[in-house]
Amino acid sequence: MVEEVPGSVGTSASFGLRLGQTLFSSASLLFMSMGVEFYSYTPFCFLVTIMGLVIPWSFTLALIDGYSVLVKCPLRQPGILVIVVVGDWVLSVLTLAAACSTASVAELMFTAAGSDCPPNLCSRYLISAAMAFLSWFLSLGSCLFNLWLLPSL
Amino acid sequence: MVEEVPGSVGTSASFGLRLGQTLFSSASLLFMSMGVEFYSYTPFCFLVTIMGLVIPWSFTLALIDGYSVLVKCPLRQPGILVIVVVGDWVLSVLTLAAACSTASVAELMFTAAGSDCPPNLCSRYLISAAMAFLSWFLSLGSCLFNLWLLPSL
Repeated sequence: MVEEVPGSVGTSASFGLRLGQTLFSSASLLFMSMGVEFYSYTPFCFLVTIMGLVIPWSFTLALIDGYSVLVKCPLRQPGILVIVVVGDWVLSVLTLAAACSTASVAELMFTAAGSDCPPNLCSRYLISAAMAFLSWFLSLGSCLFNLWLLPSL
Repeated sequence: MVEEVPGSVGTSASFGLRLGQTLFSSASLLFMSMGVEFYSYTPFCFLVTIMGLVIPWSFTLALIDGYSVLVKCPLRQPGILVIVVVGDWVLSVLTLAAACSTASVAELMFTAAGSDCPPNLCSRYLISAAMAFLSWFLSLGSCLFNLWLLPSL
């Protein structure tokens, strides 16, 4: 009998983490893509692409976690867990990269002297970057909890 | 007797990785700070700060590795290894964040229509970001190799 690690795949803590990731990624995507001209800056396109990858990934895993909690039968196959850990890790690195790029470009547009960025548009970019950072943080948490469980299997 | 993991603390592969990190971080710092006005942009200041942390860290560990290789006595204390893994991991996340921010801002300055960035200065910023990415990659390698060794101690 393997002891339960809170936050690993198939627990209610993991379900909460996944829901949070889905929520923050969707918020980041919405704040970014409701702005009119995000496609004219590379980092904003990158953020939209990565959020388009993170949302289905987190949502699928949230469904799996919800199912596991309902039937009280946590997932315990090392192969699947490795895929989840590696996927989480890759997506968290990409999310961090996108969030940093977006934040720095938005901050530059916000403070640049000759900038023609309307304040409400620029603050939306910054909010989007902040949401991406929160999503990164939760994604990293999931990755670490699952990595912690991995050697005991 | 613990078997040797190539790339973990105290091996010649690790010595090579640390030397590479020191080299690329120094190159990144030099390319950035030889440009005149890096302090007027937040991401560039951030990159300089992080490189100022990475260089002494990698250099110290390169010295330790070199000493271990010379006296043929690898470091095998879990406590120290945990510190090395956590330090490597934190520094690699910060390096990635700095490299992404620098790259996106430099790319924005490079391609912006009304930009007054001289081409030789902008390309130096891009080279500096590329060096920081290489340093991140090597730092991540060190972190993963040491993490791999950790459960067997």
